[in-house]
Amino acid sequence: MKKDSKTVSRKLNFGAGPAMLPEEVLMQVSEAVRDYAGTGMSILELPHRGKYFRDILDEAASLVRSLCAIDSSYHVLWIPGGRLQFAMIPQNFMLPDVPAGYIDSGHWSAQAISYAQLYGMTEVLASSQEKQYHQLPIWPDTHHKNLSYLHFTTNNTVEGTQWKEDPQTSVPLIADMSSDIFSCTRDFSRYSFFYAVAQKNIGAAGITLAVVHDDLLKRTIQKLPPILSYQAYVQHKSVVNTPPVFAIYTALLMLRWTSRQTLKQIDLQNEEKAKMLYAEIERNTLFYTQVEDEASRSRMNICFRGINPQVEHNFPTFCAAYDITGISGHRSVGGFRVSLYNAIPIQAVKTLIEAMKDFETEFLNKKS
Amino acid sequence: MKKDSKTVSRKLNFGAGPAMLPEEVLMQVSEAVRDYAGTGMSILELPHRGKYFRDILDEAASLVRSLCAIDSSYHVLWIPGGRLQFAMIPQNFMLPDVPAGYIDSGHWSAQAISYAQLYGMTEVLASSQEKQYHQLPIWPDTHHKNLSYLHFTTNNTVEGTQWKEDPQTSVPLIADMSSDIFSCTRDFSRYSFFYAVAQKNIGAAGITLAVVHDDLLKRTIQKLPPILSYQAYVQHKSVVNTPPVFAIYTALLMLRWTSRQTLKQIDLQNEEKAKMLYAEIERNTLFYTQVEDEASRSRMNICFRGINPQVEHNFPTFCAAYDITGISGHRSVGGFRVSLYNAIPIQAVKTLIEAMKDFETEFLNKKS
Repeated sequence: MKKDSKTVSRKLNFGAGPAMLPEEVLMQVSEAVRDYAGTGMSILELPHRGKYFRDILDEAASLVRSLCAIDSSYHVLWIPGGRLQFAMIPQNFMLPDVPAGYIDSGHWSAQAISYAQLYGMTEVLASSQEKQYHQLPIWPDTHHKNLSYLHFTTNNTVEGTQWKEDPQTSVPLIADMSSDIFSCTRDFSRYSFFYAVAQKNIGAAGITLAVVHDDLLKRTIQKLPPILSYQAYVQHKSVVNTPPVFAIYTALLMLRWTSRQTLKQIDLQNEEKAKMLYAEIERNTLFYTQVEDEASRSRMNICFRGINPQVEHNFPTFCAAYDITGISGHRSVGGFRVSLYNAIPIQAVKTLIEAMKDFETEFLNKKS
Repeated sequence: MKKDSKTVSRKLNFGAGPAMLPEEVLMQVSEAVRDYAGTGMSILELPHRGKYFRDILDEAASLVRSLCAIDSSYHVLWIPGGRLQFAMIPQNFMLPDVPAGYIDSGHWSAQAISYAQLYGMTEVLASSQEKQYHQLPIWPDTHHKNLSYLHFTTNNTVEGTQWKEDPQTSVPLIADMSSDIFSCTRDFSRYSFFYAVAQKNIGAAGITLAVVHDDLLKRTIQKLPPILSYQAYVQHKSVVNTPPVFAIYTALLMLRWTSRQTLKQIDLQNEEKAKMLYAEIERNTLFYTQVEDEASRSRMNICFRGINPQVEHNFPTFCAAYDITGISGHRSVGGFRVSLYNAIPIQAVKTLIEAMKDFETEFLNKKS
C-alpha cells in the first residue's frame, strides 16, 4: 500500500544482502545487545569460551543438521567473513595434480573460479558466460572425470538463475548456497561441502556457515595456517580465534525462526512469491526479464529490466512512496533485482506488484 | 561494593576480549539494531554500498587518523575476522629472499611467527620465551639488517607485558596493537602497518582495524586473491565483499566515545588504574605477579597468581558476589588476568581491589 504520511515505517527491503530480517528477530537481537539472557552482559561482551556461547554453537549446529536432514558425519562451522571461502576451498580440497572442476553460471561462480586458479589446476566444465548467464549451462557429465571436487553455485544472485535440482556426481560436490540455503528443499546428503554467507537467509553480514562432510575433511593434506584450515575449525569447534559471537547468535535466532516451518513449507511459500512476481513482470508492459528460460529462473533473486532507460531510472524513485527499497540490479548488470528471501513476507511482494501496476498506469497516462 | 540482593546488574567484566563496552555505546547499538537513524532499516539490513555505510566508513577513518595523528598517506582498513592478519601480513609484505623479522614476546607473537614461517623466511630477532615471557626481550639492533619488515606485538595480552616505547628502526615496522590500541600515546608515524582486533578497545568481535602506510602498500608484488590483499582493501575502500556493517558501526560508536578525550588523557587514566591494581597485588599477601620487571608490566592486561591453588580456585567464585567476572588467566598459563581496557571505569578497579582485600581478610580469618 502506498504510504499516507511521513510516518517512519519499516522499509520493504528487497536488497540482495544485507537482507531484510524478521522484526521479531531484530527485537531479540536488540535486547541481547543490552543484556544477554539476564547475564548482566551484552551479547557483544559474552566470553567466547564460556558455557553461554558453547550453548549457542551447539544449538545452531543442531538446527542446521535438522533443517538439512544430515547427521553428525557433517561438521557445522562458522567462519568469519564471506568470500574467504573462495580461497579456502582450493587450499583445503585441491589434490596434487588433480584439477578442480567448476561450473561457471554467473558472477559469483566466475569469482570462485578466478580465486581457484590462483591455487592450482582448474577446469571449467560448463559455462553460460556467452549467454551473459541469462540461463543455466547444461550440467556436465562428470562420470569419467578425475576431479579434486566439483564446485557450483546453487543460486546466481546477480543474474537471477537457480539450480533447483541437486546434481548427482561421483566426485565430491561443493556448493555455494549463499543466496538460497534454507529457502527450498535440497538433498543435502549429496554434498560433501556446502556454504552460505549469512546476510541473506541466515542473519547479518560477517559470518559464513560452512558444512563439511567428514570424508572430504579427512582428505585435506596441505599444511595450512589454522585460520585458513577447515580441519582447525572442526578441531576447535569454530573457535580458532575469537569468533564473531554477535553474528553467530543472530544466525541462531534466524535458524530458530526458520525452523518453525519445514523447508518444504518454506519452499512452497517462496515458489508462490516468485510466481506472483514473474507473472506481473510478464503481464506488465514496462518490464521484462532476460531470464527467458523458465527452468533457469531463480525464486530468490528475480532479475528484470525496464523497457527503456526512463523506466529504469524512474521506477526506484516511484517505489519510495511505497516504502520499497533495494530493488536496483547488481552494479555489474544494472536493471532491477528483487530478492525474495525467507524474511520477505508475501504482503511485501503484493505491495511491490501494486507499485508496478500503478507505475504502469501513471506511465501510460502521461504518454497518452 | 559487594552486591546486596539478587538484582540483575551490569557485570564488571574484566575479560581480555570480548571486553566490556560502555553502556551508552551498547544502548546506541541496541537502538540501531531496531532502526538505524530513522531509515526504517536495521543496521543489520543497511546496504553496504549505500551512502549511510559510506558515511560510517568515512567518519571511522577520520577518527582513526585523528586519534593517531596520521595523515592520508595512511589507509584505514576494516578486515573481517581476527587472526587472519597473521596470514595476510607475510603474504602481502614478504619480499623474495628477504627474511621477515619477528620479535617473540608472548603467546600471540609466537602465533604470528608460526603463521609467517608457513609463507617464507622468518627470523626471530629477540625472544623472551626462555623466561616464559614474564618480561620483554631486549629490543634488537636492526641497523644493518635487511628485512622485509619487522613485526612485534605492542602488548602481550596473555602474559601481561607491554612495549610502552615506540621503537625506531630502518625497516618497515609492523605492530599488532590488538590489546592496547587507543589506550596510550604512541608515535604512530613510526609504523608502516599497525592492526588491532576490535573486541578489546574498538568494539565487538568480528572485525580488525588495519592501518597501512602507502609506501609499504605499494611495495606488494605477490598476486593475491582480493580477499587476502591489502591493495584490494584499499582499492575497494574496505568493501572487497559484503563487510560486517554491524561490527564496523559498533567500532565507529566506540571511536566516537574514545575521541571525547585525547590519547594522553586516556593514557593517564589507564596508568592510574593499572598502578592501583599492581599496588594491591604487591600489598596483598595472597597474590603476586610473575612480571617482576616493572618496565615490562602491561597497563592493559594485569596478570597475577594466587599464592596457592586454593586461592586460585576460590577467588573467582568469591568475586561473583561483587558482580566481577572474566578474571581467569588465559587457559595456556592459568592464574588471573585483569584487563583494564578503556571502557573499564576506575570504580570497577576499586571494587576489584575491595574484593581482593575482603578475600584476604576472610582467608586469614579462616586460617587463624
